[in-house]
Amino acid sequence: MKLTPEWVVGFVDGEGCFHVSVHRHPESSSGYQVLPEFVVVQHERDVQLLHALKAFFGCGVVRRNHGDRMAYRVRRKEHLAERIIPFFEKHPLKSKKRVDFIRFRRVVLLMERGAHLTPEGLERIRSIVARMRERSPKRESRPCGNTGGS
Amino acid sequence: MKLTPEWVVGFVDGEGCFHVSVHRHPESSSGYQVLPEFVVVQHERDVQLLHALKAFFGCGVVRRNHGDRMAYRVRRKEHLAERIIPFFEKHPLKSKKRVDFIRFRRVVLLMERGAHLTPEGLERIRSIVARMRERSPKRESRPCGNTGGS
Repeated sequence: MKLTPEWVVGFVDGEGCFHVSVHRHPESSSGYQVLPEFVVVQHERDVQLLHALKAFFGCGVVRRNHGDRMAYRVRRKEHLAERIIPFFEKHPLKSKKRVDFIRFRRVVLLMERGAHLTPEGLERIRSIVARMRERSPKRESRPCGNTGGS
Repeated sequence: MKLTPEWVVGFVDGEGCFHVSVHRHPESSSGYQVLPEFVVVQHERDVQLLHALKAFFGCGVVRRNHGDRMAYRVRRKEHLAERIIPFFEKHPLKSKKRVDFIRFRRVVLLMERGAHLTPEGLERIRSIVARMRERSPKRESRPCGNTGGS
């Protein structure tokens, strides 16, 4: 299945999620791990769309999310920075999800500069993440089908 | 906001719904009313996308669905038959929703021939609707955000 950029933008405006979680992680220098991810969840009947997205972006993985839901996820920072973010810069989202995208991009760029490894940088990232959460509609309180993390 | 056909297909693959309800309706000749509708539901923060869809298709209404959800709905049979259906024939959906669309189209075409006004036609429509329900994933058990009807 061949996808076009405009279809991908429309589909992600509907079903995509730019999510950042911050976990306690005693082994890291700051005591926390910052995990940005781009996720699209679908019922398993449409798993072929997730594989088409994976082929389109040339990165990420397709795995079971929970129950009958499958997820396409991109977590590797270089894939986010070099493939996902440039695509949505070139082909802007039309929904308010673009606000999430802009904050998500800010976090990834801060991480590229190592900001998440210092207390000040981590604090900055946490305040961006807090603002992403504030504006999430209720049904997205478990964004991207995640069950864990905070 | 100007939408492109490919964006609309992607967005509807994610968020659209082709739904047919069959209600008891003692005043109609068959005793039932058949109500096909094309619906896109969004959180109110993205109501501008629903207005853009309305402008794109040149038909339908945008109204509150329930709570903080807004819905774009097309119910008029001539608008379904002359605008919505031809668009998705020309620009096919990529998700399994295209199966719903094909059944939805069959119902609208049957209704155009008055099939819903005879017991045999109504029975045929009900069996198509039953097959549409069978394959709905669980989360779509209240399709299109509808609260009533059967």
